[in-house]
Amino acid sequence: MATMADPEPRNLDTILASLHEHWSPRTVAVVNDYDVRVVKVLGDFTWHSHPETDEFFLVLSGSLSIDMDDGEVRLSPGDTYVVPQGRRHQPRADTETTLLLFEPSATVNTGDASGSLTAPRTVI
Amino acid sequence: MATMADPEPRNLDTILASLHEHWSPRTVAVVNDYDVRVVKVLGDFTWHSHPETDEFFLVLSGSLSIDMDDGEVRLSPGDTYVVPQGRRHQPRADTETTLLLFEPSATVNTGDASGSLTAPRTVI
Repeated sequence: MATMADPEPRNLDTILASLHEHWSPRTVAVVNDYDVRVVKVLGDFTWHSHPETDEFFLVLSGSLSIDMDDGEVRLSPGDTYVVPQGRRHQPRADTETTLLLFEPSATVNTGDASGSLTAPRTVI
Repeated sequence: MATMADPEPRNLDTILASLHEHWSPRTVAVVNDYDVRVVKVLGDFTWHSHPETDEFFLVLSGSLSIDMDDGEVRLSPGDTYVVPQGRRHQPRADTETTLLLFEPSATVNTGDASGSLTAPRTVI
């Protein structure tokens, strides 16, 4: 935003190395009213959907499966995928995996299925 | 978008390997009304600004300098940076460099400085 102080460059590897909690995204950049987030994941997330928005995934390391009602998407490093608005999905990772996400800043990680995995928006 | 066919996973390395033109972004994913784009760059881009939007850069390989009126930002692989809305900037790369960009789908690469480097939006 032109009225704010200039942002500083951020290195994804450095940020991910400091992240020890799974399924707890960190917002590393804000682009208008969207967030660029990184997250470290392991195991099964909760089934949920985002009624208001698409959600973008890029696998940085590891591998991610996204279960959906009509099948499974498997993603390796460098793979991108967009879960369409309103589509139920369950991300899961058999090994520790790092992801980059793009989504509106108001997006809650668990969407319409709040619970113990719901994480607050954390801008670093 | 829930009413469209589901998108397919896309691999950034595969897409970048097929890209031979510099400064000509490809849209690899659409998130609501935003684009995720990849681009291969070399040399100096044109000075420009985006009066309507912030612009997100992630260096995938190589290195990128962004000259701005009050200084230079130097980015290595894994580094992210947001050029604030309305800020004049000139990206440049001394070696071939690959970038991931995130910005509104309506964003033109040369912003307010159209010219020979202006590229049409290309969704692949």
